[in-house]
Parts: sequence; structure tokens; C-alpha cells
Amino acid sequence: VPEFDEFAAIARFFAPLARAEPGANGLTDDGATLALPAGEELAITTDTLIEGVHFLPDDPAGDVAAKALAVNLSDLASMGARPRAYLLALALPRVWGASRIGDWLGRFSAGLAEAQAAAGVALVGGDTVTTPGPLSLTVTALGTVSAGAALRRSGARAGDLVWVSGTLGDAALGLAVLRGGLAGVAAADRESLIARYRRPPARVALGRALVGLAHAAADVSDGLVADLGHICRASAVSAIVEVDRLPLSPAVRAALAAEPALIGRVLDGGDDYELVFGAAADAAADLAAIASRLDLPLTAIGRLVAGNGPVTVLDGDGRAVETGTGGYRHF
Amino acid sequence: VPEFDEFAAIARFFAPLARAEPGANGLTDDGATLALPAGEELAITTDTLIEGVHFLPDDPAGDVAAKALAVNLSDLASMGARPRAYLLALALPRVWGASRIGDWLGRFSAGLAEAQAAAGVALVGGDTVTTPGPLSLTVTALGTVSAGAALRRSGARAGDLVWVSGTLGDAALGLAVLRGGLAGVAAADRESLIARYRRPPARVALGRALVGLAHAAADVSDGLVADLGHICRASAVSAIVEVDRLPLSPAVRAALAAEPALIGRVLDGGDDYELVFGAAADAAADLAAIASRLDLPLTAIGRLVAGNGPVTVLDGDGRAVETGTGGYRHF
Repeated sequence: VPEFDEFAAIARFFAPLARAEPGANGLTDDGATLALPAGEELAITTDTLIEGVHFLPDDPAGDVAAKALAVNLSDLASMGARPRAYLLALALPRVWGASRIGDWLGRFSAGLAEAQAAAGVALVGGDTVTTPGPLSLTVTALGTVSAGAALRRSGARAGDLVWVSGTLGDAALGLAVLRGGLAGVAAADRESLIARYRRPPARVALGRALVGLAHAAADVSDGLVADLGHICRASAVSAIVEVDRLPLSPAVRAALAAEPALIGRVLDGGDDYELVFGAAADAAADLAAIASRLDLPLTAIGRLVAGNGPVTVLDGDGRAVETGTGGYRHF
Repeated sequence: VPEFDEFAAIARFFAPLARAEPGANGLTDDGATLALPAGEELAITTDTLIEGVHFLPDDPAGDVAAKALAVNLSDLASMGARPRAYLLALALPRVWGASRIGDWLGRFSAGLAEAQAAAGVALVGGDTVTTPGPLSLTVTALGTVSAGAALRRSGARAGDLVWVSGTLGDAALGLAVLRGGLAGVAAADRESLIARYRRPPARVALGRALVGLAHAAADVSDGLVADLGHICRASAVSAIVEVDRLPLSPAVRAALAAEPALIGRVLDGGDDYELVFGAAADAAADLAAIASRLDLPLTAIGRLVAGNGPVTVLDGDGRAVETGTGGYRHF
């Protein structure tokens, strides 16, 4: 059995992904250098994905690549940053052997090439090891943002409206489908939900448009209630969300029609990677223009009030809906 | 069994490590922002450590913390960069349960606090997940370096002398001791070797002093022959190393006296985290002054010649010593 060769893998699969960034030096150095434009500061974030925890063993390698990049770009989006580059630390299961590793890396790096081209970023460094454990990937994403302008979770104010982009719940219900659930939903809707779980968006253009307009923002990675709760606690406010205002895709509406209890997964499910943000009520016209320009729905789902963190979700009769206290947990 | 709570762990163990860097915002945001000094560019690198591969299950949590940081700072050192901050992605074994995880995180974060204080860096972000696999840590280290001044592997020239810092082989022999070997070596020497495996140095001050003086540099993480080979291939030269010139600690000398064949581990063993670099012959006086100022031996072990990559190691009789073709592999 041939041994996995890290340096050959870098040269074959990863060096081509580093060509656009001179400071990556073809991935032949101990690290990369990056010059930032004048007046810009660095925005940086990291997220780990583990097989069986954050994605499924059957997920295609190209989807895993796109997702690992997207969840990090989504964090940059929530800061209003312009993505620039990323690093990839990859732990490959030793039991796969060199042949399966090479095959997987071929499909993975092809997916990564496509995803980084769409995002306009380049690979600038990383580490590749083998592990006795499951496949795992840690991406560190680098962006730039005008000095002092980054969106935070902490600037929201009582009186702000709460907005979300896109639609909510698709990814959580896609995971439910992959686990054998939602048998009563039409095949096309099931495929649409799965696609959203495997290929989450990163609302980068929206995040950049929100700089100077939103008071606080986060991406919906842990679930709407949990991530809005992060904004509320960081900003020392509370939130009231009206469940009837949640933006839902046709597939999610079909699933809810079949199983109304799934509304809990829409509220607490993770992996949507939409942005949730607070903005002054008089920002509505500007937000409508942004939504139109980006062809991305922006929906006011509630409001922020004086308080110390709780997120209350009200149904159509004004009664509080029960939600998970800590939101979705991947583990 | 209480579930591991990521947010509570961040607040308790990691937020205190982020206090010194305002852009980390107490680790409550999706990412951090960092402003770079004018005229400086970012230097960035990432390395993963996996239990049972890069450190041993019995290694103390504080040592694991110090090592995870050191191996990344060592990469910044080899670039001549000034360390500034780091991110930590941590995958904790689910089978440990919340109680053991909490206990380990307490000792780990205490070690990290000590190590980051010594290095003058702050934690600015990360991710904490649980995994069905072994404990693993990915650190991404950020530094700054004067624009265009970073040391590379690619600038070495035929005629340069090859230098290394400190002593070589201690870590590889320390690992051999931990695996039950070197029974004939005195207990104090064995402890000294183990300490070097568990607590590698990061030659940051040396790296910064070498900017403008060394033509090319790398850290000795994969083994002297392998890492010098990286410099040679990147610089399109070959190297001749004289084994009698290698700087060896008293403990390594004692081990070699008992088992002369261990010289192979000195040449090919990894985890030394010394710097190996090429510099013009007339840099010797400057290097002697740096060695004196830093109280760190710098030793010329050979020279670079015209060629295309091979590293030849000669014994005292001028005969080539056999070395591993790819150097030390962690896996």
C-alpha cells in the first residue's frame, strides 16, 4: 500500500489553488504573506467541519469543499468584510489509504477550485495530515474591511427591526430528509432541501451592503433563535419574532403543511447561513433597494425591545412558541 | 451526563485569552478584526496537531497547548515575522464527556495563557466542536513583517553556508524515550529529551534578526534533511552537510554514545523547531553577534552548491551517510 505523500498532494491538488495570490508563493513556504490595502483592516474567522457531525459520510467531496469554504465566508459576510484568501487544514482518515485519499482529494480540490473562483478568493496556506479519526477540515478565512466599519453583534438597539435574508429552515429540513425523514414531501422539494444543506450560501454581497446600515449582524449557523439571541445578549436588548413573518421556501412550506411540528426546526435548526440583522425602522427603503439589486429577499421578522437577551417567538394569535433554549447544536 | 456547552466554554476558558486584542471583541462575534501597522504585511500559517500522531495521549494538557502554539510560531519565525495573534480550532473527543472536557480545558487554557504571554500574542478567534475521533487542534498564527522582507525558502544561493540554531535531534530522541526506547541513557538526559519533544522552542527572535541577513530559511519540523531539502528545491541548489559539525546537546551525545545508529534520527527526526538557513559566508561575524545577543548557538553545518535539490550528508571520513529520502513523517 503506497503511503500518502503530503508534498506530492500539495503540489498536485492544492498549489494550483494558490496561483492567484503571489504571497502564497505556490504553497512552498512555511506560511504566506498578504499586503492589505491602505485604510483596510483584516477580518479573520475559522470553522471546523467533521464528517458525521457537520456533514454526512455520503456527501459528495465537491459539496464538502464548497461547504467548508461557505461557512467561513458566511462569517466574513456577517462582518461586512470582502473575502480575500483562506487556509485549509485537512485531516484525512488513515484507513482510507493513499488511493482513496488521492481519489477524494481530486474531487475535493475540483470543488474547491469552483467554489473559490465563485467567491474570488485564493488558497494561501494549510496543513495536510492523516488521522486515526474521521475526515475533518478547518478553514480559516481572511477578508478586509474598512478600518472600524466591520459589522458586530453588539450594536443593535431597542426599536430596531429584525431582518433576515433568503429563507429559513431549508438546511435543517434537508438534513432531516438525509436522515430518512419527511417521506410525505414531494421528491423535488426533498432534493431542494438537501441541496441547501449540502451547498449553503454565503451572503457576502449582502454583508458588504449592510456596512453602515445594519446596527448588528450575525449569520444563521446555530439556528435563528440562537443566533438572534447572540445579537441580543451582545447588544443588551431582547427580540420579539412573529412566526407568520418568517420567510419560507416552497419546499419548507410543503414540509410544514405535512408536519406542522417542523416549525421548531425552522426556528432552531442550524446551517441556513442567511444573515440576521437589526436595523433602524427607517432603513426599510434602503434595504428594499439592496434586496432588489441583489435579487435576494430581505424580510422583517420582528423587532428589538428593551431587555437582556431573550428571543420570544409569537404565533399568529400572539402566543409564545416554545423554542430550544440553546438553539441547534451540531453535536 | 451534562452536555458540553461551547458558549460556556468560550466564556470561561477562552475569552480571558482574548483580552489584550480589542479586535477579538471578547470572542463574541463571528470573527475578529486586526489593523496592521503601516508598512507591514500579514504573515500567516496554520498547523494541525492530532493526539496519537503529533503528541501522545499522556502528554500534559499544558504542554499540548504550548506545543500547538509553538509549532505555528516557529513557522512565523522561519519567515522572520513578528507574532501578533492566533486562532484555535479545537475538536474534543465526545467520549470524554462534559466533565473530563471541562477538566482538560482548564489545564489546557492555563498552559495556553502562559505560552501566549511568553510569546506576546493573543487569541482572536476559533471554533470548538466535539468529535467522534481523537483530540485535535488547529492553530492559525498571525504575524506581521515589513512589506517584502519576509524570509522565504527560495532565496538561497550556491556558496552560502548552511546554519542551524540550537541543537538537533533532542525531540526525536525524546519521542523514542516516550515510546520505551533509550533505556541505556541516564534518567536526567531522558527527561531533558522528553521536555524538548513536549515543549519545542519557537525561534522568533532569531527569525526576526535574520531578516535581511539570511538568504532563505525554514524551521526544522519534518527533519533536518527534509527541511533543508525544501530550501534546496525551492532555491535550485544542493547541500552538503558534515555530520561532525551538527550541534548536539549533551543528552543527544550520551544517547549516540550508547547507540550510534541513532544519528539517523538526528538527521531525519522531526519536531526540533530550530531554524535552518542559508547565508553568505561573510555573514558569519553578524551571525556570531546575533548568537551572542540571543544566547542561542548558531552553527555552520555545511554549504550550498550548484545542483537541483539533493542534501548529501558526509561523515568524518567524507563518506555519504544514508538518510531517509523524504525525511521524518509524523504519520
